[in-house]
Amino acid sequence: MSKKDSPAPDLETLRHSASHVLAAAVMEMFPDAKLGIGPAIEGGFYYDFMLPRTLIPEDLVLIEKKMQHLIKQNLKFEKYEEPIDQAEEFLKKTEQILKVELVADLKKEGEQKVSFYKTGDFVDLCRGPHVESTKELKAVKLTHISGSYWRGDSDRVQLQRIYGVAFASKEELAKWEEQMREAAKRDHRELGKKLDLFSFHPEAPGAAFWHPRGKFVYDALLDFIKQENEKRGYQEIGTPIVLSSDLWHQSGHYENFKENMYFTEFEEREFAVKPMNCPGGCLLFAERAPSYRELPIKNAEFGIVHRLELSGVLHGLLRVREFRQDDAHVYCTPEQLEDEIVKIIEYTTDVYKHFGFDDYELFLATRPPKKAIGSEEVWERSTKALENAMKKLKLKWGVKEGEGAFYGPKIEFNVKDAIGRNWQLGTCQIDFNLPERFDLNYIAPDGAKHRPVMIHRAIIGSFERFLAVLIEHTSGDLPLDLQPEVARIVPVAGEFLEAAEKFARELKAKKVRIGVDRSADSLSKKIRNGELMKIPFLIIVGEKEAKSGKLTVRERGKKEQQSLALTELTKKLS
Amino acid sequence: MSKKDSPAPDLETLRHSASHVLAAAVMEMFPDAKLGIGPAIEGGFYYDFMLPRTLIPEDLVLIEKKMQHLIKQNLKFEKYEEPIDQAEEFLKKTEQILKVELVADLKKEGEQKVSFYKTGDFVDLCRGPHVESTKELKAVKLTHISGSYWRGDSDRVQLQRIYGVAFASKEELAKWEEQMREAAKRDHRELGKKLDLFSFHPEAPGAAFWHPRGKFVYDALLDFIKQENEKRGYQEIGTPIVLSSDLWHQSGHYENFKENMYFTEFEEREFAVKPMNCPGGCLLFAERAPSYRELPIKNAEFGIVHRLELSGVLHGLLRVREFRQDDAHVYCTPEQLEDEIVKIIEYTTDVYKHFGFDDYELFLATRPPKKAIGSEEVWERSTKALENAMKKLKLKWGVKEGEGAFYGPKIEFNVKDAIGRNWQLGTCQIDFNLPERFDLNYIAPDGAKHRPVMIHRAIIGSFERFLAVLIEHTSGDLPLDLQPEVARIVPVAGEFLEAAEKFARELKAKKVRIGVDRSADSLSKKIRNGELMKIPFLIIVGEKEAKSGKLTVRERGKKEQQSLALTELTKKLS
Repeated sequence: MSKKDSPAPDLETLRHSASHVLAAAVMEMFPDAKLGIGPAIEGGFYYDFMLPRTLIPEDLVLIEKKMQHLIKQNLKFEKYEEPIDQAEEFLKKTEQILKVELVADLKKEGEQKVSFYKTGDFVDLCRGPHVESTKELKAVKLTHISGSYWRGDSDRVQLQRIYGVAFASKEELAKWEEQMREAAKRDHRELGKKLDLFSFHPEAPGAAFWHPRGKFVYDALLDFIKQENEKRGYQEIGTPIVLSSDLWHQSGHYENFKENMYFTEFEEREFAVKPMNCPGGCLLFAERAPSYRELPIKNAEFGIVHRLELSGVLHGLLRVREFRQDDAHVYCTPEQLEDEIVKIIEYTTDVYKHFGFDDYELFLATRPPKKAIGSEEVWERSTKALENAMKKLKLKWGVKEGEGAFYGPKIEFNVKDAIGRNWQLGTCQIDFNLPERFDLNYIAPDGAKHRPVMIHRAIIGSFERFLAVLIEHTSGDLPLDLQPEVARIVPVAGEFLEAAEKFARELKAKKVRIGVDRSADSLSKKIRNGELMKIPFLIIVGEKEAKSGKLTVRERGKKEQQSLALTELTKKLS
Repeated sequence: MSKKDSPAPDLETLRHSASHVLAAAVMEMFPDAKLGIGPAIEGGFYYDFMLPRTLIPEDLVLIEKKMQHLIKQNLKFEKYEEPIDQAEEFLKKTEQILKVELVADLKKEGEQKVSFYKTGDFVDLCRGPHVESTKELKAVKLTHISGSYWRGDSDRVQLQRIYGVAFASKEELAKWEEQMREAAKRDHRELGKKLDLFSFHPEAPGAAFWHPRGKFVYDALLDFIKQENEKRGYQEIGTPIVLSSDLWHQSGHYENFKENMYFTEFEEREFAVKPMNCPGGCLLFAERAPSYRELPIKNAEFGIVHRLELSGVLHGLLRVREFRQDDAHVYCTPEQLEDEIVKIIEYTTDVYKHFGFDDYELFLATRPPKKAIGSEEVWERSTKALENAMKKLKLKWGVKEGEGAFYGPKIEFNVKDAIGRNWQLGTCQIDFNLPERFDLNYIAPDGAKHRPVMIHRAIIGSFERFLAVLIEHTSGDLPLDLQPEVARIVPVAGEFLEAAEKFARELKAKKVRIGVDRSADSLSKKIRNGELMKIPFLIIVGEKEAKSGKLTVRERGKKEQQSLALTELTKKLS
């Protein structure tokens, strides 16, 4: 999909051009720098360098200044081509040893010519395209430095990678910066610590330790989905975590997902820690062929799955190695398929609205170009069914070409959070392949065995990821039903602790999730702590309250305090 | 612990003697048989043989007849000793090649003499002791055949193992046989299938697949323990499943429990699938040193753990590789220790009584002779605390010498089931070691850091095992709160299905777990199916019921049917 001819440069071209300016600036600073590669990426760009010393954050300021200086000169991006041997010689002469390697590879592939782009004094081996001139780079900013390996291979030389962002206008950059500031305040990793919800330890990279408060939130979310599932005719199953490689061969995961799986061995048999719940669910379904009267069968499984992710890309609860999914597999007849997809879409968006995600988008992810199982015809049929269901609901959708799962196309659900960021959460995937591979059958009215269609669906997706998004969306002011401590009693001084405990017992008996501040802190510190922990209601108990039985209540986000009798308060809180 | 001098032969001696008679009978049948070993085991005995052909079950009848014939002859067990070289020669001459190997080993160990036991014509290399004569073997029975490897080594020759039981009297044997018949009827593996609770698949040996009905039972048990935990001041945490080997080194599991763990590798780091929840829990506790005012801190974790078990010893839900524990770790001051143990014992026995296990025993398991961490003094202190708590509750207990965990002594809780079998379920273990290894601290009133004591406790133990025991104890008639289908509506014929569905909706709205038989089966078949599934209440809906709104109710285990209005029924069922 070349975007060369569009009148305004698209963001990808803009960002790629910014990476050249970055490289030019770095070459000014370190004339001996060896250039790696410098692509545009989602949200920005980077460039990899081999440098005589390690960069420090202050370097970014200097490099950015040099970039601005180059940009102001309004330098043209000039393309020229050269025979490949000549190009190789040039790169050898300029000692760009990494580029020499790239050219050598192109030569091996049979390339005759290569192109360069020249910007001022800076020349880079590059296919392009680029913007016309540096003046189009109106809003560029460097963000951070990280380590990387040449060609992503940990046996090769380590490089330094500089990341940046680029936008079409200063306004868009300003908006992005504001979003970043907002995001930093809402960072779920920080809030997770502050609210005492979860932690991470180096002994388990990418796997959360849930503290009591966080475990409450996690389980409250789980219970909510369980209840919704039950209302909608789902039943729950549970399948093992460690399953033999035979199964993963049968399902196709071994061939298509192996690099993301943990393997282990016992009694000369290879096992994998499951990265998905589906194959186990198929084994269970395959135990008997149900009657068509029982279909659709909707088996939910809140399985814990493990997927390998490089340490470098792990990020709080957003990118983890261990997570729980609100998985379900719906087995139905081909005739029931569209209706079931409609129901799943409605269910999914209902849940998002329940959690305050009123703004969501749907994407249709189609057959991946490389790894995919099953015939073209089956892929087409499945894709059609997803489209029809969305049409029936009069929904609009985008298309993610080639981003389907290896076993079938899917609808991806994205929500927009309070500061405008998009998060992919749920999916609804059609699968004609696993039923075939696991010989799944139902007994049709004709008494014969028929193949059911299988729909994989997850609404919140990963519990871990969903909670990260929800925490950032709400800045930690979680919905009341997910609040581990709906109210906290704050005694004015130690002598009122007993009265506070008495009130707490009464509220607890009414199923109010109540806490008591038993610390020796001052009243103002206790109130501040309660506010930092984002407790929805702080209840002050002093002499007046202990005597009158009327409690002073501070509701989060409201200025006035209220004076309420215990029965009124109980009503308010439950 | 020699039991030579006891007047009546103890069971172990009796069983060992029975194994000699078994070997004598087999030698009569196969004069070329090579003898392996033949020890007494819990509940009986076995003998391993190298035989010219594979045994069939019918052989057991023949061999048992020969044994009875030998027993009737009232043969003496005569011991004699020989210099080891002479013994070796004798065994070589009689071509007992396996015994020759055993004697060669004894020689290497420096033995000078060995003993033989002679019974009639049969002679066996044996340390003894044995009964005086075969007439003491009043109640012997062969049970089954299995394969085994010479010296348990799968690279050595495969042998055939014959198992048997032996008791002091015919009455005891009869009692055992009755128990076996009862046990077979109650076998949880059979009931698991019949009641559609769970299944196993070769892709995951020792890990259950929970069907919707079984998952309900499982979760209902989980919810029950969660509620009880909350009442008693426990809070819940969750820690990762895959943790790096560093952690297992730190905890001592690597050294003492390695052979039971699954290992895997990623990014050149070794990880293990957790076999226990404690080390993860310690990492979490170690994040901050709580104030003494917060102690005891009771962290419950319903973690899923994996422990390797040889395929050969797996047995339904009773012996598995993957299971969930109702684990909790209580961190307290040394002063609080005894009180906390008292509370745990009371809690544990309360739960057993709740599930109808009124008959239970306590055992004190002490320091293991080989694998154990921590000083003698610490072991003594811990053992004392457990004893004191049991004394305080005026409980009696048995002692299991050397059967403690590698990190501390424990109380084991055994329950007796409806047919008199004993099952070990819960444990309460004291641990002075992990707090040391993980540098756990609390802030004492003096402002300084002090070491808390850690109590590991599980009440139901493994969910899988507990459910197996409960299913066998109740013959599948689970307590009402664990019943996935408390009542089932059975329409007399297809035309009443609609009325049945209407009643079902109304009962469901009242939170009754209700099913409807939608099959095309005859009424009597439907009723039989409901009875086989052990549904507590079957509700018949025909013309009379549909018109009158009064339902005909068959309560499980009662002969008379009742006629009840829907409101009466709802009250009865909820």
